[in-house]
Amino acid sequence: MTTNRQILIASLPQGKLAASDYRLEEAPLAEPDDGEVRLRTIAFAITAGTRAGLQGSASYAGAPRTGVVMNATGVGVVEASRADGLASGDRVLGPTGWQSHPVLEARALTPIPPDDDPVDWLGPLGVNGLTAYFGLFRVGRPQREDTVLVSAAAGSVGHLVGQMAKIAGARVVGVTGSDAKAEVLRSELGFDAVVNHRDDGFRQALKEACPDGVDVYFDNTGGDVLAAALSRMNVGGRIACCGVVSQYDTDDPAPGPRGVPGLLVNKRLTMAGFLLFDFADEYDAARDEIRGWLRDGSLRGLTDAVSGLEAAPEAFVDLLAGGNVGTRIVQLD
Amino acid sequence: MTTNRQILIASLPQGKLAASDYRLEEAPLAEPDDGEVRLRTIAFAITAGTRAGLQGSASYAGAPRTGVVMNATGVGVVEASRADGLASGDRVLGPTGWQSHPVLEARALTPIPPDDDPVDWLGPLGVNGLTAYFGLFRVGRPQREDTVLVSAAAGSVGHLVGQMAKIAGARVVGVTGSDAKAEVLRSELGFDAVVNHRDDGFRQALKEACPDGVDVYFDNTGGDVLAAALSRMNVGGRIACCGVVSQYDTDDPAPGPRGVPGLLVNKRLTMAGFLLFDFADEYDAARDEIRGWLRDGSLRGLTDAVSGLEAAPEAFVDLLAGGNVGTRIVQLD
Repeated sequence: MTTNRQILIASLPQGKLAASDYRLEEAPLAEPDDGEVRLRTIAFAITAGTRAGLQGSASYAGAPRTGVVMNATGVGVVEASRADGLASGDRVLGPTGWQSHPVLEARALTPIPPDDDPVDWLGPLGVNGLTAYFGLFRVGRPQREDTVLVSAAAGSVGHLVGQMAKIAGARVVGVTGSDAKAEVLRSELGFDAVVNHRDDGFRQALKEACPDGVDVYFDNTGGDVLAAALSRMNVGGRIACCGVVSQYDTDDPAPGPRGVPGLLVNKRLTMAGFLLFDFADEYDAARDEIRGWLRDGSLRGLTDAVSGLEAAPEAFVDLLAGGNVGTRIVQLD
Repeated sequence: MTTNRQILIASLPQGKLAASDYRLEEAPLAEPDDGEVRLRTIAFAITAGTRAGLQGSASYAGAPRTGVVMNATGVGVVEASRADGLASGDRVLGPTGWQSHPVLEARALTPIPPDDDPVDWLGPLGVNGLTAYFGLFRVGRPQREDTVLVSAAAGSVGHLVGQMAKIAGARVVGVTGSDAKAEVLRSELGFDAVVNHRDDGFRQALKEACPDGVDVYFDNTGGDVLAAALSRMNVGGRIACCGVVSQYDTDDPAPGPRGVPGLLVNKRLTMAGFLLFDFADEYDAARDEIRGWLRDGSLRGLTDAVSGLEAAPEAFVDLLAGGNVGTRIVQLD
């Protein structure tokens, strides 16, 4: 008999997250109630942003709790439905969490069109792709020949931001944490330059990589990279604040960069945080445009897949240490 | 024989500014060249922002130098003209600096209409008023019934921001540094609440003064007040970064607030620096609107005047310590 295999948050991390902060449990399969469906999870994405939900500090995800299934966005196949409009065999995107057979409200699910690859819905057509799209085009607003800088450039959002900025005609500079990742971004994804923030000469290398300054900075990290980026911004520049990965895996967040707010005034910079959910009315139109780029080859979603639910905790710890290139997904058996 | 009495920057301040960082000199009256005029200065304004020009750090005002006349915006009467369109007796606004008889290029001067009080051109109709106007309405964009918070609320810009926000139908909360200034803002200028940032219970008092959170924060100070304001911002809030007075009078600027960029993301906040000069095309229209408010009594420019050029250095030191209510001006004999 099949069970719902789940990974629960066993303890809230003190300092760095460890795989031992999670535990595997098996629960009986649940039956959907009115308006609900049961899925068989195909795969789910692991993203740095969910680390923030394990912090004591305020977060849009609400207060952290133990004893609950770890949250994640995933794709699955409907196994049992008591919801209008969803039938057995339909494929959907939704908040599966780290579990094999979630029961979810149908209204939390988005049907995946038959022609789409479900894995693309964890990448370019999913939360990561839409986050890159709205953050870049609505907050960053690059013009042709602008220099666009993106941090965590090999990450699930960053590698898409860079490619979208190229599509917009910008010069694209990435910041990443290893020379191997830098090489992938340059040779496979068309980044014009990539700088390794772990190098001693990082600030000088960033300066040389941005000879005309930076017009748009897409910030996935905060911390030292944000501070370095602030010093390179051109007058009138825009900073899209997407995430703070440098500060998630700690219980002692660093102070903000010295340039805030002084440099904002001197250079008339705008820093704006955004959340994807604010653009929900425009998801379909954005997906249509992204789908076009996938088809004509101007955009590629890189995935970095691991196999089996049990692999998720280590895969998350590794992600927070910068181990992934592209979107890390966990594929279930 | 009349001379041009000038106050020069004698030394760049180490730590806090002192009156001894300035010296008085008398120079012969200069004659205007083609396109120039000589003025007799009526009065000039002392504003905290000019302190930044004495810092070693980058500033829109350029690198600091000694041996030059201290910069200031002032109003004066044309004494001698070699410029088309300006005649003896005309009154103008311009970069007089701290001196009695500046020779200036005519294109740097703005004629003052005969019906206006020249002192208003150092307040509501001048740099301070326009800074308040564009920062509030273009960057902060308050809606009716929004809560607008302003720091350095008794300052030359802040006391106008608060009144303009009231005109826009907002609830206005000020932050200032003395109970006496707070009382002036409440009783004379219509602020709904004013909090003293030097009080031990400042953060709690701010919370109580903003029961519905803060929608627009007009930041003149940076530092701890910015950090406190960030924690009170509502989702979607706007922070207009106008100045960093808490950091001007030091050579060891503090780090930025911890909430940057984490809170910007969680609350979808926008922080934007601005400089008045970016709105130069719209000065006339803004002045027309401000003049209307002055006439109907909905806006009052408070001035805090001292007499005589020699009084300027001490007046500046006192201003940086928070001694002024309204626009500090130096009236020449």
